[in-house]
Amino acid sequence: MERNMFFEKLKKIVVENNSLVCVGLDADFKKIPAHFKRRKYPLFEFNKMIIDKTADFVCAYKPNCAFYEAEGAFGIEQLKKTCDYLRKNYPQIPIILDAKRGDIGSSNEGYVKYAFDYLGVDGITLHPYLGKESLAPFLKLKEKGLFILCLTSNPGAGEFQNLQGRDKKSFYQIVAEKVVFEWNENKNCGLVVAATYPQQLGEIRQIVEDDLWFLVPGIGAQGGELGRVLKGGLNSKREGLIINASRSIIFAEDPKKATQNLKEEINRYR
Amino acid sequence: MERNMFFEKLKKIVVENNSLVCVGLDADFKKIPAHFKRRKYPLFEFNKMIIDKTADFVCAYKPNCAFYEAEGAFGIEQLKKTCDYLRKNYPQIPIILDAKRGDIGSSNEGYVKYAFDYLGVDGITLHPYLGKESLAPFLKLKEKGLFILCLTSNPGAGEFQNLQGRDKKSFYQIVAEKVVFEWNENKNCGLVVAATYPQQLGEIRQIVEDDLWFLVPGIGAQGGELGRVLKGGLNSKREGLIINASRSIIFAEDPKKATQNLKEEINRYR
Repeated sequence: MERNMFFEKLKKIVVENNSLVCVGLDADFKKIPAHFKRRKYPLFEFNKMIIDKTADFVCAYKPNCAFYEAEGAFGIEQLKKTCDYLRKNYPQIPIILDAKRGDIGSSNEGYVKYAFDYLGVDGITLHPYLGKESLAPFLKLKEKGLFILCLTSNPGAGEFQNLQGRDKKSFYQIVAEKVVFEWNENKNCGLVVAATYPQQLGEIRQIVEDDLWFLVPGIGAQGGELGRVLKGGLNSKREGLIINASRSIIFAEDPKKATQNLKEEINRYR
Repeated sequence: MERNMFFEKLKKIVVENNSLVCVGLDADFKKIPAHFKRRKYPLFEFNKMIIDKTADFVCAYKPNCAFYEAEGAFGIEQLKKTCDYLRKNYPQIPIILDAKRGDIGSSNEGYVKYAFDYLGVDGITLHPYLGKESLAPFLKLKEKGLFILCLTSNPGAGEFQNLQGRDKKSFYQIVAEKVVFEWNENKNCGLVVAATYPQQLGEIRQIVEDDLWFLVPGIGAQGGELGRVLKGGLNSKREGLIINASRSIIFAEDPKKATQNLKEEINRYR
Protein backbone atom coordinates (compact mmCIF):
# COMPACT_ATOMS: atom_id res chain seq x y z
CA MET A 1 0.00 0.00 0.00
CA GLU A 2 1.21 3.45 -0.84
CA ARG A 3 2.03 5.65 2.09
CA ASN A 4 0.69 9.13 2.44
CA MET A 5 2.95 11.75 3.99
CA PHE A 6 0.14 13.41 5.93
CA PHE A 7 -1.02 10.25 7.65
CA GLU A 8 2.55 9.05 8.24
CA LYS A 9 3.34 12.35 9.95
CA LEU A 10 0.13 12.14 11.94
CA LYS A 11 0.70 8.56 13.11
CA LYS A 12 4.26 9.39 14.13
CA ILE A 13 3.30 12.33 16.34
CA VAL A 14 0.35 10.38 17.78
CA VAL A 15 2.92 7.90 19.11
CA GLU A 16 5.59 10.46 19.99
CA ASN A 17 3.25 12.73 22.00
CA ASN A 18 1.01 9.80 22.94
CA SER A 19 -1.94 12.01 22.05
CA LEU A 20 -5.05 12.16 19.87
CA VAL A 21 -5.72 15.80 20.75
CA CYS A 22 -5.95 18.44 18.03
CA VAL A 23 -6.07 22.06 19.16
CA GLY A 24 -8.37 24.25 17.09
CA LEU A 25 -6.68 27.60 16.55
CA ASP A 26 -9.92 29.57 16.34
CA ALA A 27 -8.39 32.90 17.26
CA ASP A 28 -11.54 35.01 17.52
CA PHE A 29 -10.36 38.61 17.87
CA LYS A 30 -13.28 39.47 20.16
CA LYS A 31 -12.31 36.73 22.61
CA ILE A 32 -8.51 36.90 22.85
CA PRO A 33 -7.09 38.58 25.97
CA ALA A 34 -6.79 42.37 25.84
CA HIS A 35 -3.00 42.50 25.98
CA PHE A 36 -2.78 40.55 22.70
CA LYS A 37 -5.06 43.06 21.02
CA ARG A 38 -2.42 45.73 21.51
CA ARG A 39 0.30 43.71 19.74
CA LYS A 40 1.16 44.27 16.09
CA TYR A 41 -0.17 40.81 15.07
CA PRO A 42 -2.77 39.98 17.73
CA LEU A 43 -4.09 36.71 16.31
CA PHE A 44 -0.61 35.41 15.50
CA GLU A 45 0.83 36.34 18.91
CA PHE A 46 -2.12 34.67 20.61
CA ASN A 47 -1.65 31.51 18.52
CA LYS A 48 2.09 31.48 19.20
CA MET A 49 1.39 31.49 22.93
CA ILE A 50 -1.14 28.65 22.59
CA ILE A 51 1.17 26.60 20.34
CA ASP A 52 4.21 26.93 22.60
CA LYS A 53 2.16 25.86 25.61
CA THR A 54 0.47 22.87 23.95
CA ALA A 55 2.85 21.44 21.33
CA ASP A 56 4.06 18.58 23.54
CA PHE A 57 0.53 17.28 24.03
CA VAL A 58 -1.11 17.40 20.58
CA CYS A 59 -1.17 15.40 17.37
CA ALA A 60 -2.33 18.28 15.13
CA TYR A 61 -3.37 21.93 14.96
CA LYS A 62 -6.50 23.05 13.16
CA PRO A 63 -6.91 26.76 12.40
CA ASN A 64 -10.41 27.63 11.13
CA CYS A 65 -10.21 30.12 8.24
CA ALA A 66 -13.36 31.96 9.27
CA PHE A 67 -11.74 33.66 12.26
CA TYR A 68 -8.88 34.98 10.11
CA GLU A 69 -11.00 36.04 7.14
CA ALA A 70 -13.13 38.01 9.60
CA GLU A 71 -10.11 40.34 9.89
CA GLY A 72 -9.63 40.60 6.12
CA ALA A 73 -6.24 40.52 4.37
CA PHE A 74 -4.55 41.28 7.69
CA GLY A 75 -6.17 38.21 9.21
CA ILE A 76 -4.95 36.02 6.35
CA GLU A 77 -1.45 37.42 6.86
CA GLN A 78 -1.63 36.34 10.51
CA LEU A 79 -2.93 32.91 9.54
CA LYS A 80 0.09 32.55 7.25
CA LYS A 81 2.43 33.69 10.02
CA THR A 82 0.86 31.06 12.27
CA CYS A 83 1.40 28.31 9.69
CA ASP A 84 4.96 29.50 9.01
CA TYR A 85 5.70 29.48 12.73
CA LEU A 86 4.34 25.95 13.10
CA ARG A 87 6.26 24.60 10.11
CA LYS A 88 9.50 26.15 11.30
CA ASN A 89 9.32 25.30 15.00
CA TYR A 90 7.12 22.21 15.08
CA PRO A 91 7.58 20.54 11.67
CA GLN A 92 6.56 17.22 13.19
CA ILE A 93 2.98 18.41 13.89
CA PRO A 94 0.53 18.40 10.98
CA ILE A 95 -1.61 21.48 10.31
CA ILE A 96 -5.19 20.90 9.14
CA LEU A 97 -6.83 23.98 7.62
CA ASP A 98 -10.49 23.97 8.60
CA ALA A 99 -11.65 25.67 5.42
CA LYS A 100 -14.73 23.63 4.49
CA ARG A 101 -14.18 24.48 0.85
CA GLY A 102 -15.92 22.90 -2.09
CA ASP A 103 -16.35 24.46 -5.53
CA ILE A 104 -16.13 23.33 -9.15
CA GLY A 105 -12.76 21.97 -10.26
CA SER A 106 -11.23 25.11 -11.77
CA SER A 107 -12.04 27.13 -8.63
CA ASN A 108 -10.82 24.38 -6.33
CA GLU A 109 -7.41 24.78 -7.96
CA GLY A 110 -7.31 28.26 -6.42
CA TYR A 111 -8.07 26.83 -2.98
CA VAL A 112 -5.37 24.18 -3.44
CA LYS A 113 -2.89 26.96 -4.15
CA TYR A 114 -4.08 28.92 -1.10
CA ALA A 115 -3.91 26.03 1.35
CA PHE A 116 -0.89 24.07 0.22
CA ASP A 117 1.35 26.55 -1.63
CA TYR A 118 0.64 29.82 0.17
CA LEU A 119 -0.18 28.70 3.72
CA GLY A 120 1.72 25.43 3.44
CA VAL A 121 -0.68 23.35 5.54
CA ASP A 122 -0.74 19.53 5.53
CA GLY A 123 -4.47 18.89 5.39
CA ILE A 124 -7.83 20.55 4.77
CA THR A 125 -11.55 20.06 5.39
CA LEU A 126 -13.86 19.85 2.34
CA HIS A 127 -17.58 19.86 1.49
CA PRO A 128 -18.80 16.75 -0.39
CA TYR A 129 -21.86 18.35 -2.05
CA LEU A 130 -20.33 18.90 -5.54
CA GLY A 131 -19.04 15.32 -5.73
CA LYS A 132 -15.76 13.53 -6.37
CA GLU A 133 -15.20 15.00 -9.82
CA SER A 134 -15.21 18.58 -8.45
CA LEU A 135 -12.65 17.67 -5.78
CA ALA A 136 -10.16 16.18 -8.26
CA PRO A 137 -7.62 19.00 -7.68
CA PHE A 138 -7.54 17.95 -4.02
CA LEU A 139 -7.92 14.18 -4.44
CA LYS A 140 -4.87 13.96 -6.70
CA LEU A 141 -2.63 15.34 -3.92
CA LYS A 142 -0.99 12.15 -2.70
CA GLU A 143 0.87 13.76 0.18
CA LYS A 144 -1.94 15.74 1.81
CA GLY A 145 -4.80 14.87 4.16
CA LEU A 146 -8.36 15.60 3.01
CA PHE A 147 -11.14 15.49 5.60
CA ILE A 148 -14.54 15.32 3.93
CA LEU A 149 -17.53 16.63 5.91
CA CYS A 150 -19.65 13.63 6.78
CA LEU A 151 -21.54 14.29 10.03
CA THR A 152 -21.04 17.75 11.51
CA SER A 153 -21.26 18.85 15.14
CA ASN A 154 -23.97 21.51 14.96
CA PRO A 155 -27.43 20.94 16.50
CA GLY A 156 -29.13 21.15 13.07
CA ALA A 157 -26.67 18.85 11.26
CA GLY A 158 -29.34 16.24 10.66
CA GLU A 159 -31.56 18.41 8.45
CA PHE A 160 -29.83 17.06 5.35
CA GLN A 161 -27.24 14.68 6.76
CA ASN A 162 -29.88 12.36 8.26
CA LEU A 163 -32.12 12.33 5.20
CA GLN A 164 -32.63 8.78 4.10
CA GLY A 165 -32.16 7.51 0.59
CA ARG A 166 -34.32 4.84 -1.04
CA ASP A 167 -32.14 2.11 0.45
CA LYS A 168 -32.74 3.60 3.94
CA LYS A 169 -29.16 4.79 4.19
CA SER A 170 -28.68 8.27 5.62
CA PHE A 171 -26.89 10.85 3.58
CA TYR A 172 -23.94 10.90 5.97
CA GLN A 173 -23.59 7.12 5.58
CA ILE A 174 -23.56 7.48 1.81
CA VAL A 175 -20.83 10.11 2.10
CA ALA A 176 -18.78 7.78 4.32
CA GLU A 177 -19.16 4.86 1.89
CA LYS A 178 -18.26 6.92 -1.15
CA VAL A 179 -15.19 8.40 0.50
CA VAL A 180 -13.83 5.08 1.76
CA PHE A 181 -14.70 2.94 -1.27
CA GLU A 182 -14.49 5.38 -4.20
CA TRP A 183 -12.67 8.61 -3.37
CA ASN A 184 -9.70 7.31 -1.42
CA GLU A 185 -7.58 5.95 -4.27
CA ASN A 186 -4.57 7.94 -3.09
CA LYS A 187 -5.07 7.01 0.57
CA ASN A 188 -5.32 10.70 1.42
CA CYS A 189 -8.91 10.89 2.70
CA GLY A 190 -10.42 11.11 6.15
CA LEU A 191 -13.87 12.14 7.40
CA VAL A 192 -15.20 14.87 9.65
CA VAL A 193 -17.46 13.07 12.13
CA ALA A 194 -18.78 14.95 15.13
CA ALA A 195 -18.46 13.98 18.79
CA THR A 196 -21.97 15.31 19.35
CA TYR A 197 -23.47 12.23 17.65
CA PRO A 198 -21.52 9.35 19.25
CA GLN A 199 -23.89 6.60 18.13
CA GLN A 200 -23.65 7.58 14.48
CA LEU A 201 -19.89 8.01 14.84
CA GLY A 202 -19.67 4.38 15.93
CA GLU A 203 -21.81 3.30 12.98
CA ILE A 204 -19.53 5.16 10.59
CA ARG A 205 -16.50 3.37 12.08
CA GLN A 206 -18.27 0.08 11.29
CA ILE A 207 -18.72 1.18 7.66
CA VAL A 208 -15.15 2.28 7.05
CA GLU A 209 -13.49 -0.29 9.34
CA ASP A 210 -9.89 0.60 10.19
CA ASP A 211 -9.18 2.47 7.01
CA LEU A 212 -10.08 6.06 7.71
CA TRP A 213 -9.11 8.65 10.28
CA PHE A 214 -11.89 10.83 11.64
CA LEU A 215 -11.43 14.47 12.49
CA VAL A 216 -13.78 14.83 15.46
CA PRO A 217 -15.05 18.29 16.42
CA GLY A 218 -17.62 18.95 19.12
CA ILE A 219 -15.81 17.94 22.30
CA GLY A 220 -15.66 20.58 25.02
CA ALA A 221 -17.60 23.76 24.27
CA GLN A 222 -19.98 21.86 22.01
CA GLY A 223 -20.60 19.11 24.59
CA GLY A 224 -19.85 15.79 22.89
CA GLU A 225 -19.55 12.72 25.12
CA LEU A 226 -15.94 11.61 25.09
CA GLY A 227 -16.37 8.08 26.44
CA ARG A 228 -18.97 7.02 23.89
CA VAL A 229 -17.02 8.69 21.09
CA LEU A 230 -13.87 6.73 21.90
CA LYS A 231 -15.67 3.45 22.51
CA GLY A 232 -17.31 3.51 19.10
CA GLY A 233 -14.75 5.49 17.14
CA LEU A 234 -11.28 4.11 17.92
CA ASN A 235 -9.98 1.65 15.35
CA SER A 236 -8.33 -1.68 16.18
CA LYS A 237 -5.00 0.08 16.84
CA ARG A 238 -6.72 2.32 19.42
CA GLU A 239 -6.11 5.24 17.06
CA GLY A 240 -8.02 6.63 14.08
CA LEU A 241 -9.51 9.67 15.82
CA ILE A 242 -8.23 13.24 15.84
CA ILE A 243 -10.16 14.74 18.74
CA ASN A 244 -10.40 18.47 18.24
CA ALA A 245 -11.01 21.01 20.97
CA SER A 246 -10.93 24.73 20.23
CA ARG A 247 -12.61 27.20 22.58
CA SER A 248 -12.37 24.89 25.62
CA ILE A 249 -8.58 24.90 25.27
CA ILE A 250 -7.49 28.18 23.73
CA PHE A 251 -9.71 30.33 25.97
CA ALA A 252 -9.10 28.20 29.08
CA GLU A 253 -7.41 29.84 32.04
CA ASP A 254 -4.54 27.38 31.60
CA PRO A 255 -4.43 26.11 27.98
CA LYS A 256 -1.51 23.78 28.71
CA LYS A 257 -3.34 22.10 31.56
CA ALA A 258 -6.56 21.90 29.53
CA THR A 259 -4.71 20.13 26.71
CA GLN A 260 -2.92 17.74 29.08
CA ASN A 261 -6.19 16.95 30.82
CA LEU A 262 -7.98 16.16 27.57
CA LYS A 263 -5.05 14.05 26.36
CA GLU A 264 -5.08 12.04 29.58
CA GLU A 265 -8.84 11.69 29.67
CA ILE A 266 -8.69 10.27 26.14
CA ASN A 267 -5.78 7.98 26.93
CA ARG A 268 -7.62 6.46 29.88
CA TYR A 269 -10.08 5.01 27.34
CA ARG A 270 -7.45 3.81 24.84
CA MET B 1 -44.44 41.55 2.13
CA GLU B 2 -41.15 42.85 3.50
CA ARG B 3 -38.73 44.10 0.95
CA ASN B 4 -35.14 43.00 0.84
CA MET B 5 -32.52 45.57 -0.16
CA PHE B 6 -30.48 43.08 -2.19
CA PHE B 7 -33.35 41.94 -4.36
CA GLU B 8 -34.73 45.50 -4.70
CA LYS B 9 -31.32 46.65 -5.93
CA LEU B 10 -31.11 43.67 -8.27
CA LYS B 11 -34.57 44.18 -9.77
CA LYS B 12 -33.89 47.87 -10.32
CA ILE B 13 -30.65 47.33 -12.25
CA VAL B 14 -32.24 44.47 -14.22
CA VAL B 15 -34.73 47.04 -15.54
CA GLU B 16 -32.26 49.91 -15.84
CA ASN B 17 -29.65 47.96 -17.81
CA ASN B 18 -32.30 45.66 -19.29
CA SER B 19 -30.01 42.77 -18.49
CA LEU B 20 -29.89 39.45 -16.65
CA VAL B 21 -26.13 39.09 -17.18
CA CYS B 22 -23.80 38.69 -14.24
CA VAL B 23 -20.08 38.90 -14.94
CA GLY B 24 -17.97 36.51 -12.91
CA LEU B 25 -14.81 38.30 -11.80
CA ASP B 26 -12.67 35.16 -11.72
CA ALA B 27 -9.37 36.97 -12.08
CA ASP B 28 -7.05 33.99 -12.42
CA PHE B 29 -3.51 35.40 -12.22
CA LYS B 30 -2.22 32.81 -14.70
CA LYS B 31 -4.74 33.90 -17.33
CA ILE B 32 -4.79 37.70 -17.14
CA PRO B 33 -2.88 39.57 -19.88
CA ALA B 34 0.85 40.03 -19.28
CA HIS B 35 0.73 43.83 -19.00
CA PHE B 36 -1.58 43.57 -15.95
CA LYS B 37 0.89 41.24 -14.25
CA ARG B 38 3.42 44.06 -14.17
CA ARG B 39 1.04 46.46 -12.37
CA LYS B 40 1.14 46.94 -8.59
CA TYR B 41 -2.30 45.32 -8.14
CA PRO B 42 -2.66 42.98 -11.12
CA LEU B 43 -5.99 41.33 -10.23
CA PHE B 44 -7.59 44.62 -9.22
CA GLU B 45 -6.40 46.49 -12.32
CA PHE B 46 -7.66 43.67 -14.51
CA ASN B 47 -11.06 43.72 -12.76
CA LYS B 48 -11.27 47.51 -13.04
CA MET B 49 -10.82 47.24 -16.79
CA ILE B 50 -13.50 44.52 -17.03
CA ILE B 51 -15.92 46.44 -14.80
CA ASP B 52 -15.57 49.74 -16.68
CA LYS B 53 -16.18 47.99 -20.00
CA THR B 54 -19.19 45.96 -18.87
CA ALA B 55 -21.04 47.96 -16.18
CA ASP B 56 -23.73 49.24 -18.57
CA PHE B 57 -24.74 45.73 -19.58
CA VAL B 58 -24.88 43.73 -16.34
CA CYS B 59 -27.21 43.18 -13.39
CA ALA B 60 -24.51 41.93 -10.98
CA TYR B 61 -20.84 41.09 -10.51
CA LYS B 62 -19.71 37.84 -8.95
CA PRO B 63 -16.08 37.55 -7.81
CA ASN B 64 -15.11 33.99 -6.83
CA CYS B 65 -12.96 34.00 -3.68
CA ALA B 66 -10.82 31.10 -4.81
CA PHE B 67 -8.94 33.13 -7.40
CA TYR B 68 -8.03 35.78 -4.82
CA GLU B 69 -7.17 33.41 -1.99
CA ALA B 70 -4.80 31.69 -4.43
CA GLU B 71 -2.64 34.84 -4.14
CA GLY B 72 -2.84 34.91 -0.33
CA ALA B 73 -3.34 38.05 1.76
CA PHE B 74 -2.33 40.16 -1.25
CA GLY B 75 -5.11 38.56 -3.28
CA ILE B 76 -7.67 39.32 -0.56
CA GLU B 77 -6.46 42.92 -0.54
CA GLN B 78 -7.12 43.09 -4.28
CA LEU B 79 -10.56 41.51 -3.85
CA LYS B 80 -11.35 44.23 -1.31
CA LYS B 81 -10.08 46.93 -3.68
CA THR B 82 -12.34 45.48 -6.38
CA CYS B 83 -15.39 45.57 -4.07
CA ASP B 84 -14.53 49.10 -2.89
CA TYR B 85 -14.20 50.25 -6.49
CA LEU B 86 -17.56 48.75 -7.40
CA ARG B 87 -19.34 50.23 -4.39
CA LYS B 88 -17.89 53.68 -5.04
CA ASN B 89 -18.33 53.87 -8.80
CA TYR B 90 -21.24 51.53 -9.48
CA PRO B 91 -23.29 51.49 -6.26
CA GLN B 92 -26.36 50.48 -8.24
CA ILE B 93 -24.87 47.08 -9.18
CA PRO B 94 -25.02 44.30 -6.57
CA ILE B 95 -21.89 42.27 -5.78
CA ILE B 96 -22.34 38.56 -5.08
CA LEU B 97 -19.36 36.94 -3.39
CA ASP B 98 -19.00 33.42 -4.75
CA ALA B 99 -17.59 32.01 -1.54
CA LYS B 100 -19.51 28.72 -1.18
CA ARG B 101 -19.09 28.92 2.56
CA GLY B 102 -20.87 26.77 5.11
CA ASP B 103 -19.65 26.04 8.65
CA ILE B 104 -21.18 25.78 12.12
CA GLY B 105 -22.86 28.93 13.41
CA SER B 106 -20.01 30.45 15.42
CA SER B 107 -17.62 30.10 12.47
CA ASN B 108 -20.18 31.42 10.00
CA GLU B 109 -20.18 34.64 12.02
CA GLY B 110 -16.58 35.11 10.92
CA TYR B 111 -17.57 34.66 7.28
CA VAL B 112 -20.43 37.15 7.72
CA LYS B 113 -17.92 39.69 8.99
CA TYR B 114 -15.57 38.94 6.08
CA ALA B 115 -18.18 39.23 3.34
CA PHE B 116 -20.45 42.00 4.56
CA ASP B 117 -18.33 44.15 6.91
CA TYR B 118 -14.85 43.83 5.42
CA LEU B 119 -15.53 43.36 1.70
CA GLY B 120 -18.94 45.01 1.80
CA VAL B 121 -20.62 42.78 -0.76
CA ASP B 122 -24.39 42.50 -1.18
CA GLY B 123 -24.81 38.74 -1.53
CA ILE B 124 -23.00 35.44 -1.07
CA THR B 125 -23.17 31.79 -2.15
CA LEU B 126 -23.54 29.13 0.59
CA HIS B 127 -23.39 25.35 1.05
CA PRO B 128 -26.58 23.76 2.43
CA TYR B 129 -24.96 20.63 3.92
CA LEU B 130 -24.91 21.78 7.58
CA GLY B 131 -28.56 22.84 7.51
CA LYS B 132 -30.63 25.93 8.30
CA GLU B 133 -29.56 26.18 11.93
CA SER B 134 -25.87 26.51 10.97
CA LEU B 135 -26.66 29.29 8.50
CA ALA B 136 -28.57 31.42 11.05
CA PRO B 137 -25.87 34.14 11.09
CA PHE B 138 -26.54 34.59 7.35
CA LEU B 139 -30.29 33.96 7.30
CA LYS B 140 -30.95 36.73 9.82
CA LEU B 141 -29.45 39.33 7.47
CA LYS B 142 -32.59 40.92 6.08
CA GLU B 143 -30.82 43.18 3.60
CA LYS B 144 -28.49 40.69 1.93
CA GLY B 145 -28.89 38.08 -0.80
CA LEU B 146 -28.07 34.44 0.03
CA PHE B 147 -27.71 31.97 -2.81
CA ILE B 148 -27.81 28.40 -1.55
CA LEU B 149 -26.11 25.73 -3.67
CA CYS B 150 -28.86 23.57 -5.10
CA LEU B 151 -27.73 22.10 -8.44
CA THR B 152 -24.18 22.94 -9.45
CA SER B 153 -22.68 23.20 -12.93
CA ASN B 154 -19.88 20.64 -12.75
CA PRO B 155 -20.05 17.35 -14.69
CA GLY B 156 -20.10 15.29 -11.49
CA ALA B 157 -22.73 17.39 -9.69
CA GLY B 158 -25.21 14.52 -9.67
CA GLU B 159 -23.14 12.20 -7.48
CA PHE B 160 -24.93 13.51 -4.38
CA GLN B 161 -27.30 16.11 -5.76
CA ASN B 162 -29.27 13.53 -7.79
CA LEU B 163 -29.48 10.95 -5.01
CA GLN B 164 -33.10 10.14 -4.35
CA GLY B 165 -34.77 10.16 -0.96
CA ARG B 166 -37.41 7.67 0.10
CA ASP B 167 -40.12 9.85 -1.45
CA LYS B 168 -38.23 9.72 -4.80
CA LYS B 169 -37.27 13.36 -4.55
CA SER B 170 -33.71 14.18 -5.52
CA PHE B 171 -31.48 15.87 -3.03
CA TYR B 172 -31.38 19.09 -5.07
CA GLN B 173 -35.19 19.16 -5.07
CA ILE B 174 -35.24 18.79 -1.30
CA VAL B 175 -32.77 21.68 -1.00
CA ALA B 176 -34.99 23.83 -3.25
CA GLU B 177 -38.11 23.03 -1.21
CA LYS B 178 -36.45 23.68 2.12
CA VAL B 179 -35.01 27.00 0.99
CA VAL B 180 -38.26 28.31 -0.48
CA PHE B 181 -40.66 26.98 2.17
CA GLU B 182 -38.57 26.99 5.37
CA TRP B 183 -35.40 29.08 5.09
CA ASN B 184 -36.67 32.17 3.33
CA GLU B 185 -38.47 33.88 6.20
CA ASN B 186 -36.56 37.10 5.59
CA LYS B 187 -37.05 36.96 1.83
CA ASN B 188 -33.29 37.01 1.38
CA CYS B 189 -32.72 33.62 -0.25
CA GLY B 190 -32.05 32.52 -3.79
CA LEU B 191 -30.65 29.30 -5.27
CA VAL B 192 -27.62 28.38 -7.32
CA VAL B 193 -28.98 26.33 -10.22
CA ALA B 194 -26.70 25.44 -13.10
CA ALA B 195 -27.30 26.12 -16.79
CA THR B 196 -25.69 22.78 -17.57
CA TYR B 197 -28.83 20.93 -16.39
CA PRO B 198 -31.64 22.89 -18.09
CA GLN B 199 -34.34 20.27 -17.55
CA GLN B 200 -33.77 20.13 -13.81
CA LEU B 201 -33.55 23.94 -13.72
CA GLY B 202 -37.06 24.08 -15.19
CA GLU B 203 -38.30 21.56 -12.63
CA ILE B 204 -36.86 23.65 -9.80
CA ARG B 205 -38.70 26.73 -11.16
CA GLN B 206 -41.92 24.71 -10.93
CA ILE B 207 -41.18 23.91 -7.27
CA VAL B 208 -40.39 27.45 -6.17
CA GLU B 209 -42.80 29.20 -8.55
CA ASP B 210 -42.07 32.93 -8.92
CA ASP B 211 -40.61 33.37 -5.48
CA LEU B 212 -36.90 32.77 -5.86
CA TRP B 213 -34.14 34.15 -8.02
CA PHE B 214 -31.65 31.65 -9.40
CA LEU B 215 -27.97 32.41 -9.79
CA VAL B 216 -27.13 30.44 -12.92
CA PRO B 217 -23.52 29.47 -13.61
CA GLY B 218 -22.40 27.26 -16.47
CA ILE B 219 -23.18 29.36 -19.54
CA GLY B 220 -20.25 29.95 -21.89
CA ALA B 221 -17.05 28.12 -21.01
CA GLN B 222 -19.02 25.39 -19.24
CA GLY B 223 -21.43 24.90 -22.17
CA GLY B 224 -24.96 25.33 -20.78
CA GLU B 225 -27.80 25.69 -23.28
CA LEU B 226 -29.14 29.21 -23.02
CA GLY B 227 -32.48 28.73 -24.80
CA ARG B 228 -33.63 25.82 -22.68
CA VAL B 229 -32.40 27.52 -19.51
CA LEU B 230 -34.48 30.63 -20.20
CA LYS B 231 -37.54 28.74 -21.37
CA GLY B 232 -37.74 26.72 -18.16
CA GLY B 233 -36.16 29.15 -15.74
CA LEU B 234 -37.66 32.62 -16.29
CA ASN B 235 -40.46 33.48 -13.90
CA SER B 236 -43.80 35.03 -14.92
CA LYS B 237 -42.22 38.50 -15.03
CA ARG B 238 -39.59 37.20 -17.49
CA GLU B 239 -37.00 37.69 -14.79
CA GLY B 240 -35.81 35.54 -11.87
CA LEU B 241 -32.50 34.44 -13.40
CA ILE B 242 -29.04 35.90 -12.89
CA ILE B 243 -27.11 34.40 -15.78
CA ASN B 244 -23.44 34.30 -14.90
CA ALA B 245 -20.59 34.15 -17.37
CA SER B 246 -17.00 34.33 -16.20
CA ARG B 247 -14.18 33.07 -18.41
CA SER B 248 -16.16 33.52 -21.66
CA ILE B 249 -16.44 37.26 -20.91
CA ILE B 250 -13.42 38.33 -18.90
CA PHE B 251 -10.91 36.51 -21.10
CA ALA B 252 -12.73 37.34 -24.36
CA GLU B 253 -10.88 39.43 -26.92
CA ASP B 254 -13.57 42.11 -26.46
CA PRO B 255 -15.22 41.73 -23.01
CA LYS B 256 -17.65 44.59 -23.69
CA LYS B 257 -18.89 43.01 -26.89
CA ALA B 258 -19.08 39.57 -25.25
CA THR B 259 -21.27 40.99 -22.46
CA GLN B 260 -23.50 42.90 -24.89
CA ASN B 261 -23.89 39.81 -27.03
CA LEU B 262 -24.89 37.63 -24.11
CA LYS B 263 -27.32 40.28 -22.85
CA GLU B 264 -28.96 40.50 -26.27
CA GLU B 265 -29.06 36.77 -26.79
CA ILE B 266 -30.84 36.44 -23.45
CA ASN B 267 -33.23 39.29 -24.18
CA ARG B 268 -34.31 37.71 -27.45
CA TYR B 269 -35.85 34.91 -25.36
CA ARG B 270 -37.49 37.16 -22.75
